[in-house]
Amino acid sequence: MRKPIGVFDSGVGGLTVVKELIRDLPDEDIVYFGDIARVPYGIRSRETIIRYSIEDTLFLLKQDVKLICVACNTASSVALPVIKNHFKVPIIGVLVPGAREAVYATRNKRIGVIGTRGTIKSRSYEMEIKQLDPKVSVYTASCPLFVPFVEEGWYKGPEVLSVARTYLAPLKQARVDTLILGCTHYPLIKPVIARVMGPGVTLIDSAKQVAIEVKKILASEGLLNTNGRKGDHKFYVSDNPEWFSDLAKSFLGRPIKNVRKTSNV
Amino acid sequence: MRKPIGVFDSGVGGLTVVKELIRDLPDEDIVYFGDIARVPYGIRSRETIIRYSIEDTLFLLKQDVKLICVACNTASSVALPVIKNHFKVPIIGVLVPGAREAVYATRNKRIGVIGTRGTIKSRSYEMEIKQLDPKVSVYTASCPLFVPFVEEGWYKGPEVLSVARTYLAPLKQARVDTLILGCTHYPLIKPVIARVMGPGVTLIDSAKQVAIEVKKILASEGLLNTNGRKGDHKFYVSDNPEWFSDLAKSFLGRPIKNVRKTSNV
Repeated sequence: MRKPIGVFDSGVGGLTVVKELIRDLPDEDIVYFGDIARVPYGIRSRETIIRYSIEDTLFLLKQDVKLICVACNTASSVALPVIKNHFKVPIIGVLVPGAREAVYATRNKRIGVIGTRGTIKSRSYEMEIKQLDPKVSVYTASCPLFVPFVEEGWYKGPEVLSVARTYLAPLKQARVDTLILGCTHYPLIKPVIARVMGPGVTLIDSAKQVAIEVKKILASEGLLNTNGRKGDHKFYVSDNPEWFSDLAKSFLGRPIKNVRKTSNV
Repeated sequence: MRKPIGVFDSGVGGLTVVKELIRDLPDEDIVYFGDIARVPYGIRSRETIIRYSIEDTLFLLKQDVKLICVACNTASSVALPVIKNHFKVPIIGVLVPGAREAVYATRNKRIGVIGTRGTIKSRSYEMEIKQLDPKVSVYTASCPLFVPFVEEGWYKGPEVLSVARTYLAPLKQARVDTLILGCTHYPLIKPVIARVMGPGVTLIDSAKQVAIEVKKILASEGLLNTNGRKGDHKFYVSDNPEWFSDLAKSFLGRPIKNVRKTSNV
């Protein structure tokens, strides 16, 4: 079916998910929306995150998408349970695939989760993991400074290492053997996180799991694009297309042209 | 005249200005608006900052204010030149008073300015200082991570010191003897900035100068409240009153009760 997959995020982080979608589903058209005018969602209240997520969803529906991927952990944790019930189109988040992979990976049944304040406060990962395996202990830590560090392009160096050591200390102490990177920005500082956590800890990056999930849903619903042409990718933002384009390369692994600004949100 | 002074900021930072207003003008009523739903302004585009600032101004006008203080360096730098022309009410920003004080303080005619990306990119401080004294050399640095550090309550410690050293290195090298803290959040990490810059550098905190300016304008326009009663202070936010109240104490120097959430913006 030649309709695009819709992806939204509060900013640029969701491009790590787009990267995996393009790799796994090269024939699919993709429409991305980044809500740059109101980024970051992680510090907002529950009702504001829900309101913004509904507006983002409505924008993607106007682009006639066949499936929506909420490529933002905060929105997936806080808003997805609500918006999933409102709309006919299949909507999937980044939370469930990451939680599932972590439960599969852990050996000592001690899983750590890091994310924004909004994601951690929602306790969504904890609930999801407990539902998958009630015997797993979950330890969480919010790391609000990681997003600004990534958006400033500080992926390494003593500053981010020092902050990471402080944030991750309680999780190290809890002896987790698996750590969910519960924010789409975190893969960009994965080497720093890996260095702090040590070689015995498996880091779970949800983006890969999400792409697998999307492929599965499209196949089971008969929605895959089968005309064999290479997919087309469109990028919309609510502000600052230049800033978005500058950062996009690091997240997507290649430059983006033609980022369009919309005032529709 | 028993009408309130209006103050707006993208978030909580403007409370450092309110603190000085209360000290200098204890009889005046104050209405504060913090645009918590869309904070931070520093990373937004020019047109978005202007649009948000106009909406904030309109909200304060609905509260029947007699003067508006733009207690946000980003909005003062980017939007004030535009909105000043639109409205009848006197509107003053934090930029001119800070620039004036810095020009007065410098001895070697080398002034440094630090602020958000939006403030620094606007070059407003440079233009203002050059207009006051064309012989002054101005050196600027954007410090985008300072705001998240302050909002996380990390006012000191090796993490913020390490970041400050990196940001301020070029200004130290330029041998500035005066440094404008061009963001209302920065006074909270003044000790760290002072430690990095060293004892020979005067740090200029605009909030104090703004209060003096407001007093002067109200007096000259015959707008001072002279009924001798203690002023009343109201606080409105567009999101997350709890988060605002938690942070408010550090900025204002005392706790706030009754923060109201408005959906008017």
